[in-house]
Amino acid sequence: MRQVNVGIVGLGNIGTGTMTILAENADQIALKLGFPLKVTAVCDLLIDSKKIPEALGPVVRTANWREVTSDPNVDIVVELVGGTTVASEIIHAAIDNGKSVVTANKELMAACGPEIWDRAINAGVNVAMEASVCGGIPIHAVLREGISGDRIEAVYGILNGTSNFILTEVEKHGTALETVLAEAQRLGYAEADPSADVDGLDARSKLAILSALAFGAKITPSDIYVEGIRRITPTDFDYARQLGHTIRLLCAARQTPEGLILSVRPALIPLKTILAGVRGSYNAVWVKGHYGEDTFYYGRGAGPRPTGVAVVSDLMRVAREIRNGSPQRVSPFAHARLNEYKPVPVTIQRRAYYLRFRVKDRPGILATLAGILAQKKISLEAVLQQPYDDKSDLPFVITVEPTSEQAIREAVEEMSKLDFLTQAPLALPMEPLL
Amino acid sequence: MRQVNVGIVGLGNIGTGTMTILAENADQIALKLGFPLKVTAVCDLLIDSKKIPEALGPVVRTANWREVTSDPNVDIVVELVGGTTVASEIIHAAIDNGKSVVTANKELMAACGPEIWDRAINAGVNVAMEASVCGGIPIHAVLREGISGDRIEAVYGILNGTSNFILTEVEKHGTALETVLAEAQRLGYAEADPSADVDGLDARSKLAILSALAFGAKITPSDIYVEGIRRITPTDFDYARQLGHTIRLLCAARQTPEGLILSVRPALIPLKTILAGVRGSYNAVWVKGHYGEDTFYYGRGAGPRPTGVAVVSDLMRVAREIRNGSPQRVSPFAHARLNEYKPVPVTIQRRAYYLRFRVKDRPGILATLAGILAQKKISLEAVLQQPYDDKSDLPFVITVEPTSEQAIREAVEEMSKLDFLTQAPLALPMEPLL
Repeated sequence: MRQVNVGIVGLGNIGTGTMTILAENADQIALKLGFPLKVTAVCDLLIDSKKIPEALGPVVRTANWREVTSDPNVDIVVELVGGTTVASEIIHAAIDNGKSVVTANKELMAACGPEIWDRAINAGVNVAMEASVCGGIPIHAVLREGISGDRIEAVYGILNGTSNFILTEVEKHGTALETVLAEAQRLGYAEADPSADVDGLDARSKLAILSALAFGAKITPSDIYVEGIRRITPTDFDYARQLGHTIRLLCAARQTPEGLILSVRPALIPLKTILAGVRGSYNAVWVKGHYGEDTFYYGRGAGPRPTGVAVVSDLMRVAREIRNGSPQRVSPFAHARLNEYKPVPVTIQRRAYYLRFRVKDRPGILATLAGILAQKKISLEAVLQQPYDDKSDLPFVITVEPTSEQAIREAVEEMSKLDFLTQAPLALPMEPLL
Repeated sequence: MRQVNVGIVGLGNIGTGTMTILAENADQIALKLGFPLKVTAVCDLLIDSKKIPEALGPVVRTANWREVTSDPNVDIVVELVGGTTVASEIIHAAIDNGKSVVTANKELMAACGPEIWDRAINAGVNVAMEASVCGGIPIHAVLREGISGDRIEAVYGILNGTSNFILTEVEKHGTALETVLAEAQRLGYAEADPSADVDGLDARSKLAILSALAFGAKITPSDIYVEGIRRITPTDFDYARQLGHTIRLLCAARQTPEGLILSVRPALIPLKTILAGVRGSYNAVWVKGHYGEDTFYYGRGAGPRPTGVAVVSDLMRVAREIRNGSPQRVSPFAHARLNEYKPVPVTIQRRAYYLRFRVKDRPGILATLAGILAQKKISLEAVLQQPYDDKSDLPFVITVEPTSEQAIREAVEEMSKLDFLTQAPLALPMEPLL
């Protein structure tokens, strides 16, 4: 069969990884497809400084993306520019020119995925976005095909490699989070402005896409409660371990009788669960299906080559569909019946909570705190206090039985006014994951 | 679009799970597909005793499978009979009648997958077999689509839930394996004849399919070295733990410069790897890709509903292709260049080994064993001996540095003649998995 031609816009890390795989693995790709997949055009603002693998053969090189999206020779446009402005223009231009699109753009797909899909369906072309979430983990293929027959009840994920690296370094070495973060920045693992990673914003975009696919609903980042990891200390890992738990930046999307509860926040998770074994910069997704029960997916969350595999695998699928006649499509965001999955505020969730206090020690503290909990009808489960030298900034922990997040927030607000606290209480949900 | 009609042959556990999902989840399935998927015929030898979900509506019920494979109304035949005789007839009849096939049959696909695929391609129909390996884990979708752009270097798996349940019970409680097995049989978790599970034969069929898909080569069970778990004792878990390892029935398919090395055998694996966290009846697959690095997949290995999800997800994909015009296919067993991946004997592999002895204690034992190892040019790494009361049947362990399996086998054969041994030495490879 005739080859399918690819134009790549954006030759950064992922673009380079993608070109490497398409060049080096061309034979196996052609054997799997039954026809060759050829890069025929590449575009980058700094095109003159970019090295293109010779094995790709002759390609059009340009700094103007419109030369790719309007190239009659190009069948599929790969958008690897990132961001939501130019990337959006590129994708819309490609679709309007009857070309299918492969993208790694999580911000854009999180914000505008359903609209882009509708436009592509109307134009009779395909959109593929495996690389937009958890680079090396084929979670889109899993949700779209592998377990498409299931009815998904919950998706849990560790979706940001940098924050997981930081947390697991704190866990392993007992070093303060700021120190680990500074070291990660020095080594180039964390950005100079680490906010997207440590404040949960990157993970939130990814959860928006995953939960939209899992529940077939329109979900945007603003539907998701987000809280970062900056307040987590080595002491919190010590206490969590005493409770048989560890702490991760947990992305959670759960269907409940009230609606979808969506959050990205540090949470205690049981040590015995396989999610607790996810360390370093790895990503993982845990899916709970009504019929298939628990499945779990793990791999590199980023990196030019793992993310390149996602782009190339998408290209192969889209190319196969192009050669076999582009089928009628259903948007992956559109299988929920109206209002079946409606995001609701996280404040209605019921969970056990871990409350960590830092106090100037003096008599009566526990009585005061317990009094506030009792007043909010929250039942105390356990009090943990390790020996600690500094009585002027003493950390200790109260865990409480399952209660509403609303009650916990009210209690924490009240407690925050108390003069013996050296900082506001830290409240983390304990996720049973079972 | 017009509905796609399904005929199910074999209404055992998986057939029942499949019907349940197709009945209960029909709305969501139709929304995802854009058309309904309908069961129109069901077949079982004991059809009169079978309960068919009412929500499926009117269906043809028969005890004669030919009424399903020749039914002009049926688009896809689901073969859930198992075994390699009647099942093979059913699949061939369906293909010859121009119907696509969905199957959960691991023995048949392990033995005859490539031939069945070739026949289906010639007939212009599809074959889907997600349910044949690791019921609840969508590993076929992952290999076929999710990471199809990668070049796979190794596949490791825990593919038999029963033996993993038995091993992890021995690990957890220190109970003898025979006792755990007997209890599992009493509870119905293990068969009266447990050989397929504990001797590794079931896992071997699954590894044959997985490695054929991963490497695009024809691999049959007889290409795979197999060794069961019956000789593993609680003491082995104690020694393994001292070495930072645990023991699992590990399925391994690795590309090496010499060829493909394939084995199903108990092996020591590092405790810090995520594979060591796979407990109970769960299955897991670890894929090492040249570009995508490590990915890991975990879920229920069996059960009517998890396996039913695999069948239904396959049905949805095949139905979509039928409605969109059946595309030209490439057999998933056919992307390797000739002889690129050739199975070679496991005896050439180099690994560190764990050698466990049981001896009637007396002076000179270690010197004798060390002498044999030296003679085979095997370097000793460590000697471990726990305090033990019974000096007439004393277990202890020698670990050796990486050496060839051939040398280990020769040493073990020589050692087996020694009169101070109460049983032949147990040799387990230590798999670095890294």
